[in-house]
Amino acid sequence: MNKNIIIASTSTLHGGDYLEYLLPELRLHFKHCKKILFIPFARPGGISHEEYTAKVATAFAKINIKVKGIHEFEDFSTAVSNAEGIFTGGGNTFLLVSQLYKNKIMTILAETVKRGTPYLGTSAGSNICGLTMQTTNDMPIIYPPSFITLGLVPFNLNPHYLDPDTTSTHMGETREARITEFHAFNNVPVLGLREGSWLEVKGDQTTLKGTLQARLFMPNQTPVEIESGTDLSYLK
Amino acid sequence: MNKNIIIASTSTLHGGDYLEYLLPELRLHFKHCKKILFIPFARPGGISHEEYTAKVATAFAKINIKVKGIHEFEDFSTAVSNAEGIFTGGGNTFLLVSQLYKNKIMTILAETVKRGTPYLGTSAGSNICGLTMQTTNDMPIIYPPSFITLGLVPFNLNPHYLDPDTTSTHMGETREARITEFHAFNNVPVLGLREGSWLEVKGDQTTLKGTLQARLFMPNQTPVEIESGTDLSYLK
Repeated sequence: MNKNIIIASTSTLHGGDYLEYLLPELRLHFKHCKKILFIPFARPGGISHEEYTAKVATAFAKINIKVKGIHEFEDFSTAVSNAEGIFTGGGNTFLLVSQLYKNKIMTILAETVKRGTPYLGTSAGSNICGLTMQTTNDMPIIYPPSFITLGLVPFNLNPHYLDPDTTSTHMGETREARITEFHAFNNVPVLGLREGSWLEVKGDQTTLKGTLQARLFMPNQTPVEIESGTDLSYLK
Repeated sequence: MNKNIIIASTSTLHGGDYLEYLLPELRLHFKHCKKILFIPFARPGGISHEEYTAKVATAFAKINIKVKGIHEFEDFSTAVSNAEGIFTGGGNTFLLVSQLYKNKIMTILAETVKRGTPYLGTSAGSNICGLTMQTTNDMPIIYPPSFITLGLVPFNLNPHYLDPDTTSTHMGETREARITEFHAFNNVPVLGLREGSWLEVKGDQTTLKGTLQARLFMPNQTPVEIESGTDLSYLK
């Protein structure tokens, strides 16, 4: 398969502009694209598709790429399959997945990206690259018809991965405890991507990028730290 | 209605034993009970029904109340309707709700508690007291047949409510941002219960207890702080 995918933990680093830290990478990733298709369905903070698309267009203008929101098309499936490149932004994963199913584009989106159309996901848009959305951090604000997602990689993602705060007195579950609960019922590997990390998927090769380590959770095993540059193609 | 319910944010305060801070309250709440029914379905950290029930039994032994897990009964519906008192513990809300539906006891549990059987919920066991489980903090580790829950109060709960950490550089959504996203699609009030707070529901009266304030989120309104002792019966 000719996959060409960036799966980023976050769109924005603390103190930085939207997509700023990724722009050098995106310039290369989308080098053959004059215009990309943006999927704004996750609507962070409930903002409209129009507002969200305008924000994305401002960021991509810096690398001379135009952006069109999928909501501007009459036929969403054709918009996906004809796109030069595709970006799915962050927000609420339950909402994003519900909308992908409601608009009947989950399958065509997976097929199009597997065929080689360059794809970028951030946060919720990265969550859906895994086998299921079941390791999202988001609130279930809407009931999706299924938790199954694009399956562009053979494992699940936990974007915005957060290490336990050892000074905290809060008794809510840590991120690691939540992933352990996931593994009590599912045997899919989970990759915790810290903010500033991303995965680069080129064909059959999946590489951890950025300066940070990622945390890999395998069922019934102690989690391990993965170094930047590691090839994760061995994960099944 | 003769409701007699405690809806607690957490089972355990930092540095305290399991249920310790609530025991004086529970002694009164379950004063007519020699034995209570425990619903261990939420399985925190994936522990077994047996282990979880043993932990709860140890805590309730301190106030001379026996505990029997619902998994020890042949007929779950009869166990619920005949119980002297009922406690649903915390863990994963998706798992808890899935199990309540799978075992066909969601409706009988709601009816039994509305009829006056004393009920205690902590964390996930509190989440299900609201209209829906859609303001849980938990990961969707299992796909439930519905997000609709017991509706013992006419609003939703957010247990383990956490104020934004103003010193944090993490870019994941704050709890308040997540509840704002919920309100973009739902017009149900949401009560954020901080750890150490609980609601006492007696008949038609719902009172905030404990020493802390709670944070009330109404759709399209700025959230407000609610003082301990406030009667929340006006919420619809």
